[in-house]
Amino acid sequence: MGLLLAEIRHNKLLWLLVFVPAVFAAEQLAHDAHTLLFALSVLAIVPLAALLSHATESVAAKTGDAIGGLLNATLGNLTELVIALTALRAGQFVLVKASIAGAIVTNTLFMLGVSLLLGGLKFHEQEFNRMSARMQAGLLFLATVALLIPSAVSQADSIAAAEFTERLSIGLSILLIVAYALSMLFSLKTHRELFASAAHGEAGESLFPIGVALTTLAGVTVLVALVSEVFVESVQKAAETLGMTQAFVGFIVVAIVGAAAEMASAFAAARKNRLDMSVGIALGSASQIALFVAPVLVLLSYVIAPSPMNLQFWPSAVVMMLIATMTASMVTNSGRSAWFVGVLLLMVYAIFAMTLYMLPPRVA
Amino acid sequence: MGLLLAEIRHNKLLWLLVFVPAVFAAEQLAHDAHTLLFALSVLAIVPLAALLSHATESVAAKTGDAIGGLLNATLGNLTELVIALTALRAGQFVLVKASIAGAIVTNTLFMLGVSLLLGGLKFHEQEFNRMSARMQAGLLFLATVALLIPSAVSQADSIAAAEFTERLSIGLSILLIVAYALSMLFSLKTHRELFASAAHGEAGESLFPIGVALTTLAGVTVLVALVSEVFVESVQKAAETLGMTQAFVGFIVVAIVGAAAEMASAFAAARKNRLDMSVGIALGSASQIALFVAPVLVLLSYVIAPSPMNLQFWPSAVVMMLIATMTASMVTNSGRSAWFVGVLLLMVYAIFAMTLYMLPPRVA
Amino acid sequence: MGLLLAEIRHNKLLWLLVFVPAVFAAEQLAHDAHTLLFALSVLAIVPLAALLSHATESVAAKTGDAIGGLLNATLGNLTELVIALTALRAGQFVLVKASIAGAIVTNTLFMLGVSLLLGGLKFHEQEFNRMSARMQAGLLFLATVALLIPSAVSQADSIAAAEFTERLSIGLSILLIVAYALSMLFSLKTHRELFASAAHGEAGESLFPIGVALTTLAGVTVLVALVSEVFVESVQKAAETLGMTQAFVGFIVVAIVGAAAEMASAFAAARKNRLDMSVGIALGSASQIALFVAPVLVLLSYVIAPSPMNLQFWPSAVVMMLIATMTASMVTNSGRSAWFVGVLLLMVYAIFAMTLYMLPPRVA
Repeated sequence: MGLLLAEIRHNKLLWLLVFVPAVFAAEQLAHDAHTLLFALSVLAIVPLAALLSHATESVAAKTGDAIGGLLNATLGNLTELVIALTALRAGQFVLVKASIAGAIVTNTLFMLGVSLLLGGLKFHEQEFNRMSARMQAGLLFLATVALLIPSAVSQADSIAAAEFTERLSIGLSILLIVAYALSMLFSLKTHRELFASAAHGEAGESLFPIGVALTTLAGVTVLVALVSEVFVESVQKAAETLGMTQAFVGFIVVAIVGAAAEMASAFAAARKNRLDMSVGIALGSASQIALFVAPVLVLLSYVIAPSPMNLQFWPSAVVMMLIATMTASMVTNSGRSAWFVGVLLLMVYAIFAMTLYMLPPRVA
Repeated sequence: MGLLLAEIRHNKLLWLLVFVPAVFAAEQLAHDAHTLLFALSVLAIVPLAALLSHATESVAAKTGDAIGGLLNATLGNLTELVIALTALRAGQFVLVKASIAGAIVTNTLFMLGVSLLLGGLKFHEQEFNRMSARMQAGLLFLATVALLIPSAVSQADSIAAAEFTERLSIGLSILLIVAYALSMLFSLKTHRELFASAAHGEAGESLFPIGVALTTLAGVTVLVALVSEVFVESVQKAAETLGMTQAFVGFIVVAIVGAAAEMASAFAAARKNRLDMSVGIALGSASQIALFVAPVLVLLSYVIAPSPMNLQFWPSAVVMMLIATMTASMVTNSGRSAWFVGVLLLMVYAIFAMTLYMLPPRVA
Repeated sequence: MGLLLAEIRHNKLLWLLVFVPAVFAAEQLAHDAHTLLFALSVLAIVPLAALLSHATESVAAKTGDAIGGLLNATLGNLTELVIALTALRAGQFVLVKASIAGAIVTNTLFMLGVSLLLGGLKFHEQEFNRMSARMQAGLLFLATVALLIPSAVSQADSIAAAEFTERLSIGLSILLIVAYALSMLFSLKTHRELFASAAHGEAGESLFPIGVALTTLAGVTVLVALVSEVFVESVQKAAETLGMTQAFVGFIVVAIVGAAAEMASAFAAARKNRLDMSVGIALGSASQIALFVAPVLVLLSYVIAPSPMNLQFWPSAVVMMLIATMTASMVTNSGRSAWFVGVLLLMVYAIFAMTLYMLPPRVA
């Protein structure tokens, strides 16, 4: 606790932590002030994300960047999982799917793009472990194939067989979880030496001891989840007030705020010339959502949702996931980066965001 | 003949050769026992494939892995060609196209995937000649473009002009054959040094002399073709009895059994750390089917089929061929492999197989 | 002027310059002889292109291949811009879009393909700067995404909202121009060392001094533009006479003749083993059309055209642009080339050209 206070004194951003109790208070007192709750919850998530970033770096310092990145992605995605579970229980499948597709696109294009841009503005040229990036890109490609097949087959061959899509979704979900488990075995056990870092930054900052770091990681994640729920409840109404479409909210806003914690870590690592960690967080998080969160939600829908959810996405979401995966694969292939690579990723993201923002309301 | 018997004593699998006469006997005696004929023909193809593998390795030892792989792909695809010619003569164009698309997908994903997995389970990391893999991937990409254009143009622009598709198919077929011939000139003559092997296994086994090897190659290929015909006749009915859909049979079962001979060679080479040969067989076989077998069938359909066959595939077959080619291209780009790369390929294949297995019967 | 005459005596091709006044004379005297005007204008463009090529090489010798290539692409695309502006003013949006899509496809496949083939026939293996090629391929990919999104979203989700497409097109145009400007900043300023040449040819020929070279560049470009206008006016009617479809004319003929000047430079550079320059001209020209010419035309359509033009292309044009970009990306990834790489590109181009040639007339 003393270390936490010292960290708060050190990092000015953490003063924003005051918005965490403010969110909960406001939710009790002004339950219908959606735009206020929306603003407060965003403000509260930022310092929690920063704290999570520092704790994760402390653990990463002990375990190596790749595993640190994996840990980060695992814990960071709890936010997305909690958001999606809430929506799933309410039967809001469109929102669940939008947040899954949005998280994949946002992590591969926006998170990776900003990381490469920030890193590139500080360092002339940066390198990262391309083996690790390639495996993540391969996993993402596999997941994208799994997510596009139900929609490709039913579209292309004009099959309206709901039963077929449902059975296929269960099968695909199991395949994806098996692939994810095997990827863990590969990267953490049989071939872990391939995933060692290529470059290291100076590590002169005060890190948490491992116990404090782990406790902070767990506790802050819970807080992020709680605040995220307020955020989800308020975001829809607030978006209407602010003039945003449903598609834009699910795909872009939920995805960015849901991944805020991981973004803080990825951006910080990029500015410390530890691109391995940035790429690991961004692509690792995207592939974890695609290969673990999405299929778990499909399987859990049989238990907690009013009706089963399938893996069939609407066509332009599939196109965007496919383009995002191809872009990430092209960009990480060389293992080197400069600022313009980040610009390229962000431009593709901007094209998607603009399209979704302008989309007529009935598509979501 | 003495060498052949010695080989049979050495390789226990070859005892299965007894099923070759059994198939022909059963066909005479129990012409309608489809499931029995199906089982017998599969059992008979396995040892023939093994023998073919050994003979091919004997020739390959004399000529270098790349040319050996090419030889293997050429002879191995006689099986597919014979199957397709039988179906073509009967006007069963859907089955012909399913077996072409299935062969491309099965060779690039299943054959290559199992090779990389088997090799990776034995060796921590393996290398192969990426120049050769890149050319094969480039050829496959070219063929996929040729196969997707008729369906893309007629779908996208809603043209139902049969005459256009037919003329286009002839033109595309000629282009593909020219490209295939030029690829031979490139890899066997002007730039053959690029296709030399990167890694060699120990060659301590007893090889056939070149004469015996060539005779065995030719004779066994004929036997494979004869048994394949029984297989084709029985597989449809047997599949119904066993509860498989038409699409699954054409795309997966015919493709796997048709390529059994090449698979035996590719898997054996991978376990001997000769990945060059495995990759050469898998991708070479796929590109030979796409650039040579498919266009030859289109052109021959004007001579031997009841009506001309075009190159227009149904949309999900095009999607699967395109994804298979992109996956093979991604995976072979680095020239290095570990077991998880094989898993990735097999997972994509499993997604396709599962989708086709679950597809409602009317699509095939 | 003396240097110009010396150059004409040196290069036999330049005797064709006599067709330049012939075109203008014929236009006055035989305004309706479309096939004659078409033939004369093609013959007149060839020597102008050759002169442009020599002048550009003179400038390039002073500035390095990459910048020389960029200069060339900039000036060469003035032809396409003038053609498109003429059509835009007349409200012929289909022709404008066909010439944009055609220029992208022709530059990435035909110009690059012939360069690699010509170079490969003379040199066993050639190298080029892959960093530069990768950036151009990345830019092209970005542009292709921007050009496919309007058609993908409106197709896939069956939106017929013209207003949505129009607003989206303006937004995308601005994004593309920003990306293009940033790419200039990157390649000409912050990271220009990455774009230095990998290989140089012998430079024993007589070059223009920089003043003459620049004057020639400017003057000849104007002449090319004037002749191109006669070409555009005559090509449509001449094509009908010669039996070509509209789609083929816009996509293939206009694109090849419009890029004749750049092609002369690119082919000459390839034969001098300066593939950096060839690749820079081909991909640089394609990406300049996609990221600069196309969006400028959209924005200018609000000023000079009878009604605003959007960025929505017909589906098979989008498919062809996407395949061309993917092919260029695959092929330039390794930074090495041999003749067969050129064949692969030309085969993909031949597939497209054949398809467009055979297309029933109503699609264009």
